[in-house]
Amino acid sequence: MIDTVRWKPLNDKGPLPGKVRMIDQTKLPEELTYLETDSLDEIYDAIQRLVVRGAPAIGCAAALGLAAVAQHSKAQTGLDFIADTQQTADHLATARPTAVNLQWALDRCLHKLRQTLDEDVVDLKHVLLHEAREILDEDIAMCRRIGKHGVELIQPNARILTHCNAGALATADYGTALAPIYQAQEDGLHPKVYADETRPLLQGSRLTAWELDRAGVEVTVLCDNMAAQLMAAGGIDLVIVGTDRIAANGDVANKIGTYGVAVLAQYHNIPFYVATPYSTIDLSLPTGADIPIEQRDPEEVRRGFGRLTAPAGVKVHNPAFDVTPAALVTAIITDHKVIRPPFEPALQALFD
Amino acid sequence: MIDTVRWKPLNDKGPLPGKVRMIDQTKLPEELTYLETDSLDEIYDAIQRLVVRGAPAIGCAAALGLAAVAQHSKAQTGLDFIADTQQTADHLATARPTAVNLQWALDRCLHKLRQTLDEDVVDLKHVLLHEAREILDEDIAMCRRIGKHGVELIQPNARILTHCNAGALATADYGTALAPIYQAQEDGLHPKVYADETRPLLQGSRLTAWELDRAGVEVTVLCDNMAAQLMAAGGIDLVIVGTDRIAANGDVANKIGTYGVAVLAQYHNIPFYVATPYSTIDLSLPTGADIPIEQRDPEEVRRGFGRLTAPAGVKVHNPAFDVTPAALVTAIITDHKVIRPPFEPALQALFD
Repeated sequence: MIDTVRWKPLNDKGPLPGKVRMIDQTKLPEELTYLETDSLDEIYDAIQRLVVRGAPAIGCAAALGLAAVAQHSKAQTGLDFIADTQQTADHLATARPTAVNLQWALDRCLHKLRQTLDEDVVDLKHVLLHEAREILDEDIAMCRRIGKHGVELIQPNARILTHCNAGALATADYGTALAPIYQAQEDGLHPKVYADETRPLLQGSRLTAWELDRAGVEVTVLCDNMAAQLMAAGGIDLVIVGTDRIAANGDVANKIGTYGVAVLAQYHNIPFYVATPYSTIDLSLPTGADIPIEQRDPEEVRRGFGRLTAPAGVKVHNPAFDVTPAALVTAIITDHKVIRPPFEPALQALFD
Repeated sequence: MIDTVRWKPLNDKGPLPGKVRMIDQTKLPEELTYLETDSLDEIYDAIQRLVVRGAPAIGCAAALGLAAVAQHSKAQTGLDFIADTQQTADHLATARPTAVNLQWALDRCLHKLRQTLDEDVVDLKHVLLHEAREILDEDIAMCRRIGKHGVELIQPNARILTHCNAGALATADYGTALAPIYQAQEDGLHPKVYADETRPLLQGSRLTAWELDRAGVEVTVLCDNMAAQLMAAGGIDLVIVGTDRIAANGDVANKIGTYGVAVLAQYHNIPFYVATPYSTIDLSLPTGADIPIEQRDPEEVRRGFGRLTAPAGVKVHNPAFDVTPAALVTAIITDHKVIRPPFEPALQALFD
């Protein structure tokens, strides 16, 4: 599997000393290079510059990064070590302030340290790394469970459209939207994937196409505006996308363009599936209507790849994501089960 | 108005000698430069390299280009001059073999020469240039008539989505899809335009945004996958697009992505208009279903911005255009009138 984020021991005597190792996604698809580091500045920078991206992958990178930095702590007591580590975590958390998993993973590591009540600093360093690797392992297991549930929706030789990257590069393992596809490939079902390039940042063509190609899954890239023609020609059997957040009624916030794909899928009678860990479901949010749509930097559109592709200074509409109403969603593939409409009671039941 | 293609006399004593002058559209939006030439090789190259593009503009450039080259003919007799000019035209016609207007404009010029039956070569050179300028003038008048008919569909402050470039840069004047918008601007209706960037070649952000901005029309660029979100937010009142070909039943072939916009417009109850000269209507084609969808070079998608944006060698789906079924079209704005469903008898009546 693609090793988006991992722990790398420096020798074979044990997990410490070590470094966090991650694929530098800013270099894809042109070259596969890894960042190996135990430097706070480099880890902070990696999260900020999207060397690592995707909520679950960011959580893993932050937790392992915290352990990598903390191993060098000069603290003599457990309390001092925890204070040191808290300071590191507070700084790391600001690398991408809206990334929920980043804060969550760091909090969880600190909580574990406080629970441990150990005065041996070396022990605590091992406890911290162990917790970080637990987060990684749980993420891998979560991906696999989504894969197992989702693969039941995939027929042999199915032609599957996906949007953006909710794959191995966004997690520690099979991804969310791509997990059922990797599982289908493993099961010999020969899925054929169409990857929307996903303007403006092209996560589909740069990342999804790269990781599927590398894993031996048949993949074809298309521009976002070509999906409708392909659907009309009978070329798509189902759609699977990821999500940033699901409201209590089943409304789905995801990368800009997802909603348009959902409308097109309904028009062409193609099932539209959303794959996600159940931790992404936010029951405190009644519907998706209240999510404010953030506008991103116009330069992403005007000058996406170093060249001016629109008049300098022209107005740009560049929303970061959109909301797909639950009515357009055929089913939600979670790590617990596949949920079908009506979503509201089914989502509630997951938490009961 | 934007002077996409024009004749430029070299002195003020008369139209000849002169050159054809065109905006180099490959340099937009970064810089506005003109190509002025009377060289066959340069004119051929300009049509082939998309220095000039858009069916009507290509026709005008070819006719004026033919006159520019022919003025230097050493022929001593009318018949020799016509033979020379025919040879030039035959070569020019191969610059873009599928461009119907290219062949049509060249044929028309040659036909005029043959009709004239003049043995004075200087006279014939003037006749040829006159015919070429007639083609240009008729194109300008056609654009204005589309504008006059189409503006009746535009309310004050209307927010209008368009796709690709069917504007001044595709014609000799107001364009087709953009003609009603320029007319609305002239009439003080303050239209606000949203221009789909139109991957892979970005004619929307590079050309449509440039020409509207330059003409003082308020324009906002968006990625193709953002139109659905904008429609759902109530941000679009109507859609106007151009077309390459309309079948007898009203099916519309146009730049890839048009069909998706039409589906989204219907879903959001937004009128979807197609603007076109009636010469684009092809009654010999019963429906759009039989039009083969040409696949273009994968590198347009993989390396569109000069940088590799998808894995080298990955499969690409890159259809040049799509077909929008007549059922999704609210009305067709022609240079004769606005045509509403049922289209089949209305289109037939245009030719009766």
